[in-house]
Amino acid sequence: MIVMKPTATDEQVQAVIERIESVGAQAHPSRGEEVTVIGAIGDREHVARLGLEGHEGVEKVVPILKPYKLASTQLKGEARTVLEIGGRRIGGDHFALIAGPCTVETRDQTLDTADAMLAAGATMFRGGAYKPRTSPYAFQGLGQEGLRLLAEAKERTGLPIVTELMDARDIEAVAEVADVIQIGARNMQNYPLLSEIGRSGIPVLIKRGLSSTLEELIMAAEYVLKEGNEAVMLCERGIRTFETAYRFTLDLTAIPVLKEMTHLPVVVDPSHAAGRRALVEPLSLAAAAAGADGIIVECHPEPDEAICDGPQQLRVDGFAEYAAKVEQAAILGGKLPFGATAAAARA
Amino acid sequence: MIVMKPTATDEQVQAVIERIESVGAQAHPSRGEEVTVIGAIGDREHVARLGLEGHEGVEKVVPILKPYKLASTQLKGEARTVLEIGGRRIGGDHFALIAGPCTVETRDQTLDTADAMLAAGATMFRGGAYKPRTSPYAFQGLGQEGLRLLAEAKERTGLPIVTELMDARDIEAVAEVADVIQIGARNMQNYPLLSEIGRSGIPVLIKRGLSSTLEELIMAAEYVLKEGNEAVMLCERGIRTFETAYRFTLDLTAIPVLKEMTHLPVVVDPSHAAGRRALVEPLSLAAAAAGADGIIVECHPEPDEAICDGPQQLRVDGFAEYAAKVEQAAILGGKLPFGATAAAARA
Amino acid sequence: MIVMKPTATDEQVQAVIERIESVGAQAHPSRGEEVTVIGAIGDREHVARLGLEGHEGVEKVVPILKPYKLASTQLKGEARTVLEIGGRRIGGDHFALIAGPCTVETRDQTLDTADAMLAAGATMFRGGAYKPRTSPYAFQGLGQEGLRLLAEAKERTGLPIVTELMDARDIEAVAEVADVIQIGARNMQNYPLLSEIGRSGIPVLIKRGLSSTLEELIMAAEYVLKEGNEAVMLCERGIRTFETAYRFTLDLTAIPVLKEMTHLPVVVDPSHAAGRRALVEPLSLAAAAAGADGIIVECHPEPDEAICDGPQQLRVDGFAEYAAKVEQAAILGGKLPFGATAAAARA
Amino acid sequence: MIVMKPTATDEQVQAVIERIESVGAQAHPSRGEEVTVIGAIGDREHVARLGLEGHEGVEKVVPILKPYKLASTQLKGEARTVLEIGGRRIGGDHFALIAGPCTVETRDQTLDTADAMLAAGATMFRGGAYKPRTSPYAFQGLGQEGLRLLAEAKERTGLPIVTELMDARDIEAVAEVADVIQIGARNMQNYPLLSEIGRSGIPVLIKRGLSSTLEELIMAAEYVLKEGNEAVMLCERGIRTFETAYRFTLDLTAIPVLKEMTHLPVVVDPSHAAGRRALVEPLSLAAAAAGADGIIVECHPEPDEAICDGPQQLRVDGFAEYAAKVEQAAILGGKLPFGATAAAARA
Repeated sequence: MIVMKPTATDEQVQAVIERIESVGAQAHPSRGEEVTVIGAIGDREHVARLGLEGHEGVEKVVPILKPYKLASTQLKGEARTVLEIGGRRIGGDHFALIAGPCTVETRDQTLDTADAMLAAGATMFRGGAYKPRTSPYAFQGLGQEGLRLLAEAKERTGLPIVTELMDARDIEAVAEVADVIQIGARNMQNYPLLSEIGRSGIPVLIKRGLSSTLEELIMAAEYVLKEGNEAVMLCERGIRTFETAYRFTLDLTAIPVLKEMTHLPVVVDPSHAAGRRALVEPLSLAAAAAGADGIIVECHPEPDEAICDGPQQLRVDGFAEYAAKVEQAAILGGKLPFGATAAAARA
Repeated sequence: MIVMKPTATDEQVQAVIERIESVGAQAHPSRGEEVTVIGAIGDREHVARLGLEGHEGVEKVVPILKPYKLASTQLKGEARTVLEIGGRRIGGDHFALIAGPCTVETRDQTLDTADAMLAAGATMFRGGAYKPRTSPYAFQGLGQEGLRLLAEAKERTGLPIVTELMDARDIEAVAEVADVIQIGARNMQNYPLLSEIGRSGIPVLIKRGLSSTLEELIMAAEYVLKEGNEAVMLCERGIRTFETAYRFTLDLTAIPVLKEMTHLPVVVDPSHAAGRRALVEPLSLAAAAAGADGIIVECHPEPDEAICDGPQQLRVDGFAEYAAKVEQAAILGGKLPFGATAAAARA
Repeated sequence: MIVMKPTATDEQVQAVIERIESVGAQAHPSRGEEVTVIGAIGDREHVARLGLEGHEGVEKVVPILKPYKLASTQLKGEARTVLEIGGRRIGGDHFALIAGPCTVETRDQTLDTADAMLAAGATMFRGGAYKPRTSPYAFQGLGQEGLRLLAEAKERTGLPIVTELMDARDIEAVAEVADVIQIGARNMQNYPLLSEIGRSGIPVLIKRGLSSTLEELIMAAEYVLKEGNEAVMLCERGIRTFETAYRFTLDLTAIPVLKEMTHLPVVVDPSHAAGRRALVEPLSLAAAAAGADGIIVECHPEPDEAICDGPQQLRVDGFAEYAAKVEQAAILGGKLPFGATAAAARA
Repeated sequence: MIVMKPTATDEQVQAVIERIESVGAQAHPSRGEEVTVIGAIGDREHVARLGLEGHEGVEKVVPILKPYKLASTQLKGEARTVLEIGGRRIGGDHFALIAGPCTVETRDQTLDTADAMLAAGATMFRGGAYKPRTSPYAFQGLGQEGLRLLAEAKERTGLPIVTELMDARDIEAVAEVADVIQIGARNMQNYPLLSEIGRSGIPVLIKRGLSSTLEELIMAAEYVLKEGNEAVMLCERGIRTFETAYRFTLDLTAIPVLKEMTHLPVVVDPSHAAGRRALVEPLSLAAAAAGADGIIVECHPEPDEAICDGPQQLRVDGFAEYAAKVEQAAILGGKLPFGATAAAARA
């Protein structure tokens, strides 16, 4: 849809029409009292390439069609994608509570947390072996040794493993243990990495970049989907705003809007957004009540001793109560129970 | 707290110390291996006026004390302010559901909505008589006639009235009908208006500016509190970000953080943030679950015919179900029931 | 322009067409392969009020016409507004250097600065008598006494006076001395104040709000223009972003874009954006080179002793060199010399 | 620097002191009338890992030392880094005009543009062979064939080549032709890629992420510097804000501030920020006048036919005039002439 300037001449309008027709598309001009608007109908990519924004007499170009296809709700006639990962479901009526430490540090810390998460009703286990750090001088994760500990936690608890991949050259090692590969916010537009994961077929959770629009997040998913990998989850983790009272501003409006735009499950990470433990529970309840398909949250047996992000990690003590409350909020948000209250009753 | 540059000379450090002492404050220098830091202890305003940011050898000035006093949680030893307005409470354990049309349009529209809000368990009635509009060509509200209709709605339902004041010269007329004066986001830093309301003693709900920090919002409250008016509510209504898929980004992290910073009730407006009806319920549930003290929401008998903001107004039909769900979320967020479920049962 | 959802039914398309026609506008549907788009042609306000965003089957509503009229470049057939204020011109080929202290503090400070500004080739004198302060505990300006000192500076130097108005109730007092009324960023959307200034006929400089779009800034100008006051200048003064290394992010792209959108002069305030003296010169040169019609800058004889914003005020010593450089940049940006180099030569 | 809450108990203060001392650092408490502040002096990394933000009684942790070392101005005692690349200098008094097409499309387009850039006085040639595209369906660059054409342009004109690397697995191929590797905004925090370039020793130009702080941009440089590669340039290319009238908001305040923080050359990309040709010249002049060490700009013989980003590319016709104006602005910003005016005279 091309909006001409009010001062555009007939020649300029005609030139735009000819340019549209030159790529085999059809031009549909409507002349209003003040401006002329020209619809361009034809192959989406051809039209996108016309580059008419700079053309003489053109005021602006308004794209009408969405740039994503495979992630779109239209594709499935409004049906939601439900993923089954290691026997746990996420999407549609199913809520996933993905919990574990920020970073895999030691065997005890890893296994103790995994046991506690299982007991509290968490449905997947998260833990970082490769850590993207702003500073090259900071701890960069245990790497291969971390993956080994995650494998042990999985064998012991049966919980599917969610862990981050930063470098396409590590994909084989990570694929051996990960049930879900996490793409961090900083890598949301690392297209070679996304394509590689697309080809691997491993389920992936893509975190929204710090200032990425929802459309860009969905386009990142599209890179994976295009390679034939349909197991994609989107994750809101806080965006950057002017506010300095907290690290990031968790954007919960993204939950209902992403669910309108796409059929993919929508997960929320309240830990990184908040940066402080006291904010994690209210934000988790808010996310679940707003209809999130899952929460990915950090938890540590002794957060004060954690190597990284200690202040934002929940304590293992008290996690079961937290999980039960999240379950209530998820039910209010339209989900089936996921077992936290039942787990608490067993304990 | 003044942080000196690593290259600061002894003379520069000494000059800063002398400047601090010149206003009667005490200087406490600590010399580290790389930098020297100087604490300035004394009268807050004197120290604030030192203007040391530009001084030679100074790297940065880090304020340690908060700039607000009367709004601070410290003032009340962690107790929460509970306001009683026309027999309805807000703050502490008490949740308020403030509902009504964006704009007062006609007698029927106003009274029908007021009746429906009362029946559904809303605790206050909102409606605009003076409307701040981006365009001078848009409808600016019914003014005095709108106030008269609000007075009639109040007499009929007993619901306290929340309505906006834009111009200090209208305060007497608005004060005759308003139980709560609303200060819109665009007027959050209209200091003469805030001071005038402070002197009036009328309860006030202050909306956060589109890009105001929480500290600035609290400073706006401080302008009212300083005049002796303690009946102040803070309202999150969405901030401006880069995202274009919705009008504003509702910042729900503000709820727990404002409650840490201040003893004042915290209200959320999901309607203006979302801009679309379908998003209002999930955001309302999220806000209540996160611990908000109240929600202010727009509702209209025939939103498609509304003069302004029709697409974001809830329908009167279905409002009772919405209110009952919000009540459940508020209970999850730690509040007492406010009567919506009971109202639904009566109906 | 209404874009329907790909899933919209014929009935939904028809309902939208009928709704458009119900307000006397014409509907022009174009059916594409994937979506239907409906143009609505008719009275701008009627169409704006349709509120079709929430209508069933509607994907989005894209406004085609600009919401401003009197400020638009179209109004004048591409001619630029040139204002003549107290014998000095701004707009078109004419560049204005508006300089003076943040706040009027004392007679000596005011008159000494005014003398120096005149000598250096500044074309107008700025100074605040009423100061909007985030904190109610901070110095709020000298008020009436400040206005009296500005009047004395004007009598002495002949420089036109630019000073801020915060409260419509002060307009008569301010009008006695001000050649240009400044509307601060926080009052950019204080519509009663804008309309009052519109009716006064006094030239006005409107600062962009901290997170206002250019369109909103122009709409603020439209409130003044609508009352018949054509002497409006727009001022970019920094917007709020996530960056914490400086107070505001000066948006210099606003200069060429505002000049495309509107015929009004565009001024830049580098002082408030930067917050630090060292940044003021590079930002001033950048603004002038980008084509700004003027710069409004703060200058003080002894910034270290200033009551407010000392660190960002230029020193009177050195101002003449600064002014001469700004003049060179303005010439590069397409302006005529404004006299700074000539003034330096005289000195 | 740890700021305790006003309500912190002596035990809480003592606990923080002990925690600081437990990692071998020294604690320096200062007890003010309202709050206690504790300085922590010792190994930077040990202190950073303490994670005291969440500790009981702690209000906030204020880092005093900068997290970067090798990029810091302190490292070089205020001297500026001057890079010599293929006989052209950048940094200090030396300005670089880096110009060429967004994307390498054909042999003619590449060589014609390179010839024109050389003739107009540009000092380096840019062109993309690997293009990061938001959409997986968009043209992704010519890859190896594009590199071959760049090599031909270099051989012919002698201009050093600047081209983007997206995937560490392509580094050898890119290194064969690139004199400067460009890291795009989306890869600014792709740490494995940055480290790889660090090890390669090839000069690198790092673009600031869309919502990255200056400190984060410098930390990205630190990843390269840490590996022993000192040839790093920083590039401002526009940040994401709420404004919708242009693609990105070019942050020119970043120029003087980055030059205060670091000794590395600072380059500005006006093309991607603006998104429209008409804005490129004013923004280029502004950047040069503000003291940028270089500009990287897009230019195409027939922008209307360009495969990507046509509307923002300057025309080859007229480029010499543009370059001469940029040279004047750079001189105003403190640089030596770089040859554009001389080139124009020769032509």
